[in-house]
Amino acid sequence: MSIAVLYGGNRPNGNTEALTKKVIQGLTVEEIYLKDYLIEPIVDKRHANEGFSEINDDYNSIIDRILQHDILIFSTPIYWYSMTGTMKNFIDRWSQTLRDSNYPDFKNKMSQKRTYVVAVGGDNPYTKGLPMIQQFQHIFDFIGTNFDGYIIGEGNKPGEIIQDKVALFAVEQLRKKLQ
Amino acid sequence: MSIAVLYGGNRPNGNTEALTKKVIQGLTVEEIYLKDYLIEPIVDKRHANEGFSEINDDYNSIIDRILQHDILIFSTPIYWYSMTGTMKNFIDRWSQTLRDSNYPDFKNKMSQKRTYVVAVGGDNPYTKGLPMIQQFQHIFDFIGTNFDGYIIGEGNKPGEIIQDKVALFAVEQLRKKLQ
Amino acid sequence: MSIAVLYGGNRPNGNTEALTKKVIQGLTVEEIYLKDYLIEPIVDKRHANEGFSEINDDYNSIIDRILQHDILIFSTPIYWYSMTGTMKNFIDRWSQTLRDSNYPDFKNKMSQKRTYVVAVGGDNPYTKGLPMIQQFQHIFDFIGTNFDGYIIGEGNKPGEIIQDKVALFAVEQLRKKLQ
Amino acid sequence: MSIAVLYGGNRPNGNTEALTKKVIQGLTVEEIYLKDYLIEPIVDKRHANEGFSEINDDYNSIIDRILQHDILIFSTPIYWYSMTGTMKNFIDRWSQTLRDSNYPDFKNKMSQKRTYVVAVGGDNPYTKGLPMIQQFQHIFDFIGTNFDGYIIGEGNKPGEIIQDKVALFAVEQLRKKLQ
Repeated sequence: MSIAVLYGGNRPNGNTEALTKKVIQGLTVEEIYLKDYLIEPIVDKRHANEGFSEINDDYNSIIDRILQHDILIFSTPIYWYSMTGTMKNFIDRWSQTLRDSNYPDFKNKMSQKRTYVVAVGGDNPYTKGLPMIQQFQHIFDFIGTNFDGYIIGEGNKPGEIIQDKVALFAVEQLRKKLQ
Repeated sequence: MSIAVLYGGNRPNGNTEALTKKVIQGLTVEEIYLKDYLIEPIVDKRHANEGFSEINDDYNSIIDRILQHDILIFSTPIYWYSMTGTMKNFIDRWSQTLRDSNYPDFKNKMSQKRTYVVAVGGDNPYTKGLPMIQQFQHIFDFIGTNFDGYIIGEGNKPGEIIQDKVALFAVEQLRKKLQ
Repeated sequence: MSIAVLYGGNRPNGNTEALTKKVIQGLTVEEIYLKDYLIEPIVDKRHANEGFSEINDDYNSIIDRILQHDILIFSTPIYWYSMTGTMKNFIDRWSQTLRDSNYPDFKNKMSQKRTYVVAVGGDNPYTKGLPMIQQFQHIFDFIGTNFDGYIIGEGNKPGEIIQDKVALFAVEQLRKKLQ
Repeated sequence: MSIAVLYGGNRPNGNTEALTKKVIQGLTVEEIYLKDYLIEPIVDKRHANEGFSEINDDYNSIIDRILQHDILIFSTPIYWYSMTGTMKNFIDRWSQTLRDSNYPDFKNKMSQKRTYVVAVGGDNPYTKGLPMIQQFQHIFDFIGTNFDGYIIGEGNKPGEIIQDKVALFAVEQLRKKLQ
């Protein structure tokens, strides 16, 4: 089982990253920090005559990398009760890939993967983060990926996540499962 | 009552824009197409010693414009069951403005506004778009803005929205209310 | 197309009932007021050796009636942000029917029906009623029924529902569809 | 700190009860099995001239008992993606108590309590149980009670809950907090 992590956060060493690092401790994973790449917002041309234009950014290279793996971990801080705009822009572009003749079996390949979400928020993430989890469920249902589980943690200031013992325990269980 | 519309879509003349145009028909409004501006993703420095860095993009100018108005309409296509990454990046940046000494009363001013959401989606938006509505509720609760209502429409191909008669009627009611 | 309405409310002539009556005006429907029947809460014996005990109440007779119809309308006031306990007890019992040898094709028959939900609430039903809609979606997904749409109305005191013009319009559209 | 548990399940020794028992192990609590009492569905007379009629069942005696305690644990299996009809009927009746002159400070007293929810489901409770959690949030927000946390467990057949190690760990943390 081969694993890729997609980090959506924009703060180095944030709580979400810290929690995710504990999930993958000792495992061989490919880590992708979305903030380090240029990912243009989608220009929605699903219904344009000319179709989508090729975009000259880093998006496709990230798709190429995640398609190699069996398991994808979406790691995002909860900003304003949802995934970060950075991660959302990445996912929005899937609409283009679904119609990209260079990726004829994108959906098929994605549907063979398993996904996890790791998310940390500061304002009651256990209830106010739930719509985001429901959205990930809809996203994964659409693309056909199996949504194998999620871990929500609570934390605000850097390092606070280590006080969320239930999240840490859940992380430990997930780590064992991924070994 | 002064009105601003924030468009989050990335397709010219899309269904969401078309539906929103019907809301504001005959009204004086300031229309802001987020896609036409450079809005960097937030670099989360809420807990950094140096604080947030000033970002040299168009974000603040948009904040300046919306702060002038009493009513804000968030108009977003439902991409992957949520607002567009473009709109999300705009909202993510509010975390910075909340700590920006140039905007000492940002939250206070926002809390005096009323907001509406207009959203169109193609995949069962009436149920699968609900987590997004819940997120807007959380967002507006946090910033103190009154969430006065939303309109969800169904449509995929350009122009399809005019077949959603309930959405069109709701738009008409909202238009009267805003007069 | 044959239609049954299941009323979950416990107030005669309440707003939900009034709104639902407008949906079915001029149509031939079978109306079932759940409050007028004895429906015991389920005693969950899915995993008991002896299986479910036969319950001597009105539940099965209602199942017999709804199975005759092609379209089911679930009409419930929003009490405490969800369907009424009366309606919930009725649905809880489906777990028994799914294992009842007298109803070997319950799920199959249910999966051929189309369903609608009509719900009225007094406390921001357009946002706070959304989890209930999501639950109906899960319920209908499980049983295989097509969830064709819902109408949420706002109203508290008797008669207030007629001020919710969007709900009334949606009702009118649904009525035309059901003709 | 004095604790009451409200059990909403209708199966003796079910997974939800088993998980809840682990929360309260070694603590002095008052346990109330709702299924053992007669709790009539509410007859909604909020707007009737004569007001609510007194109901001759066990409901008020349960209210009397829970009002004595500082912490309330709502323990419910997830039936059809929500709390049981039995528990819902109990909560529906709060609308009556809020207007009952024998309980003039019901809301005030409730608002001084802290609440927890313990829920076990068999069909992806970690995602499909989320609308129920959102409803409890709305319920507790309305009544003013602090919603201090919830534990969702996964289990279907009796005893399966002990395989949900994260739920068991969360239970252990909650037990320590309640000591």
